[in-house]
Amino acid sequence: MRVKGWSTANIIKKTTTRKIQMNGTRFDIIKKGSITTVPGFYAGSSHCGLKNSDEKLDITIIYIPDGSACSGVFTTNSFQAAPVVVDREILRKKGMVKAVVINSGIANACTGKQGMENAVNMQEIAGSTLGTARDEVMVASTGVIGKQLPMDKIEKGIRDCAQKMDPCGGEDAAAAILTTDLVKKNIAVSVPMEGGNSITIGGIAKGSGMIEPNMATMLAFVGTDAKVDKGVLQKVLEAANEESFNSISVDGCQSTNDTVLLMSNGKSGIEVKEKGKNYSYFFEGLLYVMKELARMIVLDGEGATKFIQIHVKGAPDYAQAKRAALKIANSNLFKTAIFGQDLNWGRINAALGSAGCQFDPENVDIYIDKIKIVEKGRGTDRGEKEASGLLEERDICFTIDLKNGNGCSTIWTSDLSFDYIKINALYHN
Amino acid sequence: MRVKGWSTANIIKKTTTRKIQMNGTRFDIIKKGSITTVPGFYAGSSHCGLKNSDEKLDITIIYIPDGSACSGVFTTNSFQAAPVVVDREILRKKGMVKAVVINSGIANACTGKQGMENAVNMQEIAGSTLGTARDEVMVASTGVIGKQLPMDKIEKGIRDCAQKMDPCGGEDAAAAILTTDLVKKNIAVSVPMEGGNSITIGGIAKGSGMIEPNMATMLAFVGTDAKVDKGVLQKVLEAANEESFNSISVDGCQSTNDTVLLMSNGKSGIEVKEKGKNYSYFFEGLLYVMKELARMIVLDGEGATKFIQIHVKGAPDYAQAKRAALKIANSNLFKTAIFGQDLNWGRINAALGSAGCQFDPENVDIYIDKIKIVEKGRGTDRGEKEASGLLEERDICFTIDLKNGNGCSTIWTSDLSFDYIKINALYHN
Repeated sequence: MRVKGWSTANIIKKTTTRKIQMNGTRFDIIKKGSITTVPGFYAGSSHCGLKNSDEKLDITIIYIPDGSACSGVFTTNSFQAAPVVVDREILRKKGMVKAVVINSGIANACTGKQGMENAVNMQEIAGSTLGTARDEVMVASTGVIGKQLPMDKIEKGIRDCAQKMDPCGGEDAAAAILTTDLVKKNIAVSVPMEGGNSITIGGIAKGSGMIEPNMATMLAFVGTDAKVDKGVLQKVLEAANEESFNSISVDGCQSTNDTVLLMSNGKSGIEVKEKGKNYSYFFEGLLYVMKELARMIVLDGEGATKFIQIHVKGAPDYAQAKRAALKIANSNLFKTAIFGQDLNWGRINAALGSAGCQFDPENVDIYIDKIKIVEKGRGTDRGEKEASGLLEERDICFTIDLKNGNGCSTIWTSDLSFDYIKINALYHN
Repeated sequence: MRVKGWSTANIIKKTTTRKIQMNGTRFDIIKKGSITTVPGFYAGSSHCGLKNSDEKLDITIIYIPDGSACSGVFTTNSFQAAPVVVDREILRKKGMVKAVVINSGIANACTGKQGMENAVNMQEIAGSTLGTARDEVMVASTGVIGKQLPMDKIEKGIRDCAQKMDPCGGEDAAAAILTTDLVKKNIAVSVPMEGGNSITIGGIAKGSGMIEPNMATMLAFVGTDAKVDKGVLQKVLEAANEESFNSISVDGCQSTNDTVLLMSNGKSGIEVKEKGKNYSYFFEGLLYVMKELARMIVLDGEGATKFIQIHVKGAPDYAQAKRAALKIANSNLFKTAIFGQDLNWGRINAALGSAGCQFDPENVDIYIDKIKIVEKGRGTDRGEKEASGLLEERDICFTIDLKNGNGCSTIWTSDLSFDYIKINALYHN
């Protein structure tokens, strides 16, 4: 297997740009960062014919030749796609992986026994091509439900991906996993740890429609060169996932294929244990990467013209705050009003009131940015005048204060536009 | 107060058309039936200026001069519109009513103390105009949330309605309560009871968007000349409501104003008690009236091009069947696929799988009419070919068999089209 520019990779990878500080952790965003920005992570991508367009990449392999601890979170849908079943089994048994094969265009979901055989076959072909064991290969698929994978194309694609393995291949990998997405979703950060040395965390994601928590129709693959054992890796992934991919919604529809994998190859030699400063640094860096990927998914939501943040505070607890925020985020009437740049705050009240949360309707305040549009459950004249201009912006931030406790939650969502209908009415054809 | 054609009313009202038989009860649909088809029910309607168009009726009074027992079901939203609060109070205290005043255009919801005063004021004006007590007048409002009612217009409207009181006024009343609805929703049936004499049940409804169970953004007013005491009336209303207005969904959004009132003036002299044949006959007749009104609401759903029936059977219980059916009915991806006449059954599976019901995904069958499109969780080639033509029809009937018990539920919904977006993005302007 040929890897282009192997030796120079780490030098190319480390041009940082923006400095970030979050909850006491300082880290840098790496310019043009992706999953392959992480030392020891490679990717090769190809067009094997699953997407109609001749040029579009539709299969990719993320390769970690030295092996990597792996944790994952998956869809909670009763219909689990074949690759999800296969990956869960690997993580249950082993959790040391060397490759992830991902195809777009066909979801390999609701495909029965044949679908399971095809998923296992994907593992075997990649394993034999890369010279690794079948059960060190994870698989993921996204696209139309119910169709079988054309295994001849998949096989050709896997061999081609292996030929194109590249330490800067993350950008192409991010392209290869897209379906209705319009833009690639990549990021990497460099996080200084105790003692002054840094670790890298990088990831790619896809997702555009069928996006709703638990987990959103999305795939994300995040790598790090920190040394984290499997148990800690799973714990930190679940914690970061709750505040990132589990806090976005495009259309309230849950997928059969959702998969987020976090892989750690330990190449930096810096250990992250269950407690201590390194854990905090690592968590903040990871959370930032996953939140940024989640934000990119919402921004690229099917037909989206707006990026809407809904922050509910003053709820009796976190669960109620999140339920209320999601109820608003998933209200078609709210989403169409935002698309129409119409300050129809009554639809926020109506959605909020149907969430089954405990609060006094006569006590609710709602803000757009810092402007109070609803006070004690009623519209404020001043707010309506001042806030309507804010609806012309792309990014709109609502805060809903229930004044009934300390629970809070933030959800990101998009609006509901003509293009959402267009994309989804004609998707299958 | 003048009532046109009082003496001839009952003769005009009784031209029946179609004969219906349901669960052993036989009854007749009355031609051009409405709530005023019921002896002793009158209605007067007016344009008072709440709707922009000069010609559109926007206020109406349903008048039962001899008084009527009344039962009601209301929205479960935490934000209860002022008229809902007022009506609940009347039913709690008394339950004998002589009039219902309904305006469209403004919902009188999230309007605080002023809104409550206005709702009470509506009662008082109607009471003094009709010569009845304030607490014998029910009120209902529908339209934009957050605006105060212009009470001068309301007062003029109420006086005008009283002047136009008509034993055939139901049709106009049905027009006066509409908002974004395109068609009036009217029906009446004549139900033979024990001993051969008949009772009449008639109703009007409105609803088009913000339609989802518990209860759907809708108003419905149903009258009967059967003699039913308040307790039985409430019981039979709740039972029929569960299978009618609580089994439809247009957009999954719940309203602040939902109100269904069932009024019985006893004019036929035929008594309906808690048990016995008359109860069954009355229930079947009422259920038919309420289901037909519910069906008209879905058919008139905002932007709807399809009427979709989702029947889930084989669930462990009724609650799970209903949850599954609603999850599918409220899936934007499913609804847009139906709009696009695209047999994307994977979206049914995905929605079903996210409903939190107990079933084996490898055992689910899905039908359109009698054609099996999914067998044991997977698409059938034959079904896909044969069923795609059925998606061109206006009425589409899905049956989902979970094969895990005897629970079943039927939900009616519409598709999600460009026009839904158009109507709701620009509603407020």
